[in-house]
Amino acid sequence: MKTASIDLNCDLGEGFGQWVQADDLALLELVSSANVACGFHAGDPAIMSRVCARAAERDVVIGAHVGYRDLHGFGRRPMVLPPAELRAEVIYQIGALAGIARACGSAVRYVKPHGALYNASVDDQAVAEAVVDAIRRVDPALAVLGPPDSLLLKRAAQLGLTCYREGFADRGYTARGTLIPRGAPGAVIETRDDVLRRTVHLSCAGGLSTEDGGWLPMSIDSLCLHSDTPGAVELARSIRRRLDEESVTVESFIRRARVPQVSG
Amino acid sequence: MKTASIDLNCDLGEGFGQWVQADDLALLELVSSANVACGFHAGDPAIMSRVCARAAERDVVIGAHVGYRDLHGFGRRPMVLPPAELRAEVIYQIGALAGIARACGSAVRYVKPHGALYNASVDDQAVAEAVVDAIRRVDPALAVLGPPDSLLLKRAAQLGLTCYREGFADRGYTARGTLIPRGAPGAVIETRDDVLRRTVHLSCAGGLSTEDGGWLPMSIDSLCLHSDTPGAVELARSIRRRLDEESVTVESFIRRARVPQVSG
Amino acid sequence: MKTASIDLNCDLGEGFGQWVQADDLALLELVSSANVACGFHAGDPAIMSRVCARAAERDVVIGAHVGYRDLHGFGRRPMVLPPAELRAEVIYQIGALAGIARACGSAVRYVKPHGALYNASVDDQAVAEAVVDAIRRVDPALAVLGPPDSLLLKRAAQLGLTCYREGFADRGYTARGTLIPRGAPGAVIETRDDVLRRTVHLSCAGGLSTEDGGWLPMSIDSLCLHSDTPGAVELARSIRRRLDEESVTVESFIRRARVPQVSG
Amino acid sequence: MKTASIDLNCDLGEGFGQWVQADDLALLELVSSANVACGFHAGDPAIMSRVCARAAERDVVIGAHVGYRDLHGFGRRPMVLPPAELRAEVIYQIGALAGIARACGSAVRYVKPHGALYNASVDDQAVAEAVVDAIRRVDPALAVLGPPDSLLLKRAAQLGLTCYREGFADRGYTARGTLIPRGAPGAVIETRDDVLRRTVHLSCAGGLSTEDGGWLPMSIDSLCLHSDTPGAVELARSIRRRLDEESVTVESFIRRARVPQVSG
Repeated sequence: MKTASIDLNCDLGEGFGQWVQADDLALLELVSSANVACGFHAGDPAIMSRVCARAAERDVVIGAHVGYRDLHGFGRRPMVLPPAELRAEVIYQIGALAGIARACGSAVRYVKPHGALYNASVDDQAVAEAVVDAIRRVDPALAVLGPPDSLLLKRAAQLGLTCYREGFADRGYTARGTLIPRGAPGAVIETRDDVLRRTVHLSCAGGLSTEDGGWLPMSIDSLCLHSDTPGAVELARSIRRRLDEESVTVESFIRRARVPQVSG
Repeated sequence: MKTASIDLNCDLGEGFGQWVQADDLALLELVSSANVACGFHAGDPAIMSRVCARAAERDVVIGAHVGYRDLHGFGRRPMVLPPAELRAEVIYQIGALAGIARACGSAVRYVKPHGALYNASVDDQAVAEAVVDAIRRVDPALAVLGPPDSLLLKRAAQLGLTCYREGFADRGYTARGTLIPRGAPGAVIETRDDVLRRTVHLSCAGGLSTEDGGWLPMSIDSLCLHSDTPGAVELARSIRRRLDEESVTVESFIRRARVPQVSG
Repeated sequence: MKTASIDLNCDLGEGFGQWVQADDLALLELVSSANVACGFHAGDPAIMSRVCARAAERDVVIGAHVGYRDLHGFGRRPMVLPPAELRAEVIYQIGALAGIARACGSAVRYVKPHGALYNASVDDQAVAEAVVDAIRRVDPALAVLGPPDSLLLKRAAQLGLTCYREGFADRGYTARGTLIPRGAPGAVIETRDDVLRRTVHLSCAGGLSTEDGGWLPMSIDSLCLHSDTPGAVELARSIRRRLDEESVTVESFIRRARVPQVSG
Repeated sequence: MKTASIDLNCDLGEGFGQWVQADDLALLELVSSANVACGFHAGDPAIMSRVCARAAERDVVIGAHVGYRDLHGFGRRPMVLPPAELRAEVIYQIGALAGIARACGSAVRYVKPHGALYNASVDDQAVAEAVVDAIRRVDPALAVLGPPDSLLLKRAAQLGLTCYREGFADRGYTARGTLIPRGAPGAVIETRDDVLRRTVHLSCAGGLSTEDGGWLPMSIDSLCLHSDTPGAVELARSIRRRLDEESVTVESFIRRARVPQVSG
């Protein structure tokens, strides 16, 4: 009998200098994968070092959370860069975090785009290609984490990179499987009970309910916890308890034997 | 009979965005080692990629030119950072360039501090230790390039890193072997003939004349060419010609079989 | 009999730290209006001070050249900001330059957007409104400099701001009066003779020839000289000589008694 | 009979982009003077606008909190700049905030240096001169806020600027009237009761007790509340209540008829 397991990933290290965004160390006790900001939309070497050192201690897998060069807009402003320039910006960030992780006795194992770059890599072919090309050039053994049906994962699979799919228990989905845009009704799941129920659905039942009350089949490898919402740590603890109750093991996707799930 | 050879190193990639500092591509035809700015005092991923790609084509060895986080002051302003923070800032830069170099099919082989960090690493023990610690943590196979007699190279040698010593043919030295401070008489060697003569002395004769007319024995592994002085490319060509005339081969220190020259 | 006169404006102070973009001091001998970069796409307080001090000495009128917060992309990357945020970013830049200019015994007299903000203010109503609102809130006595027929000048005129129209002698125009996009054939006027002829047409004849050989009536108050093209200073000198030959006085639009030319 | 009054000043607007440092709006209900960060060590135009708009509504006086260009180090890293460059950096910041304040229907009334620039302006003559020169060049009607006995206020008084002296109720002083350095015993007053007692002493009794149990006469015009300590808002409320109980009015120094207190 197969034991259910799921990865929990979280955006960490999103401060800058003395500015703090989230309780990184508390969250590192609760997640299995840390998306570490690389200094372009947030993060700096000292913060990255603290997060990587603790991640290494707690056996949390480290991923590069790469974004646009935009501290002021937190990487949430759409930007258009020539592909070669975007590729170089992504390579730089992965390399920088790889250096920090190695100095902490660990390594970067996967890459996930952040913010506006995440959004663009879902449906902009040139962006998806530039990001995947960057990853492959730095190290083709790096995995890619992103939304199920994204151009990002399709392109990564085409080039033979390992892909992992993430879902959100605290965000609403349309019947087509896309996120309901922020600001629209149902975009954010408000109550803790709803978030916990959707966590179980995504982790064990291979799907979740949609805005129109239907059932959306959705296979994911990782559940993304938001780090910067009020009560993020307490919500993460509740999610861990609920997964325990359901006998779902929290384990990095990197640590599981896997077959590819995305075809290019 | 031993054939004389010398390395020529040069600071490259010191633009930012659309700002250009030097004729990088022309200089890459003339030097054997490229100190590539890593984005903190100058440089950005696109510039780093262009320099590394061309360096890889021309078989020029790539070094990380690490500096303080100070684009506005070009890394020339003294800064005091806690050692762990300075270490992280250096690791980040080396890692970033390593990513870029690898994506270009090459690798970072050595590290040289820039500007105010260079100066501090000569005589500030805490800075020298932080920089060397950073290098060793990223990759103990990385070499260190710096001034002879510096705390930087002493510390590096103590920890078993390979050290290379650089000298300047266009700068005046005191009888004690230190650079005459900029602004003081004799700090800069003005005429091309004098620079060429000192080039030969440093490369073949193991020393050079000092401000008081004496002879300073100085063994170096590399001669540093300044990239941002007017006529830098033409001067570099003259130096290459003169070294040819003297049958001195220009070759990276990395490519030569060597014994350690600095004792800790 | 009316004597013809024209303003010559030029983007100046577009360096950063030790990076230099153009020969600002030489160009300040030749133009009547200086668009001074305000630190967001280029420029810094020391550079702004040097440009303003010399402009004050030479009686060159100072304008604020406001741009997006984008040193790395030189303000040429399109960005989308909430209107209140864009307005604040523009106010900040005008205020900063006003402080510098006042400290030099001069003042900011007009505002011209730069790069991607210039382009957006031509045809994006929200951007045009935010920029004009910013200018009016800082000081309704400030004039606005921009392309004829732009939403920027229309909005400025609606709110009672004084507007000045600029044209380019070194850029090609379509029959509809818009610039031929860079990269397309005819976008840049290549020969000096053509630029000089178009200079005279724009200054004296109230129009210029279009790509299809027709005549485009175009009334402008100012001719924009590019500062960063090779030979910019020599070209500016040629333009001054040619205007002299045609008895066209070079004089700031601010210094001339004027009637409003743009209706809202 | 003279009614006692005191100014309460507080560092506000010290976020950047989406990073938040303090509860600015709550503190603006409690203080009479707002030291607004100007974008160099913290702050950005949107934050500055929000703080200035609310300050204008609440009749809180606006001061420019000028610092070194150092977002990453929050302006706390000592930097050495040529005097003309430092002067320009200060002018720029004052001008930028003046623009924002004017657009909000208010004005900048005073200047206070921040962090490492504050410390340097206390005892470094060149820094004190550059800062005061900057203020005077922008607008000699601007007042200067700083520590009693500082070179900053001495220089400002010499040049005829109005000076105001600030003290700290939550910091320990030596018998000579200097702050006990952070990290040393007694540097920070830990208990609320002690802070409240010292508040009354500074506001009404013209002095406070020192580390050795003596009494230090100290006349101040303003009490500085720290905005970024945990419980800052609640402490500020307690201070307001206590001052009320002692019949001390909270009122900006700008609003009081005054005679100069510092002689050059």
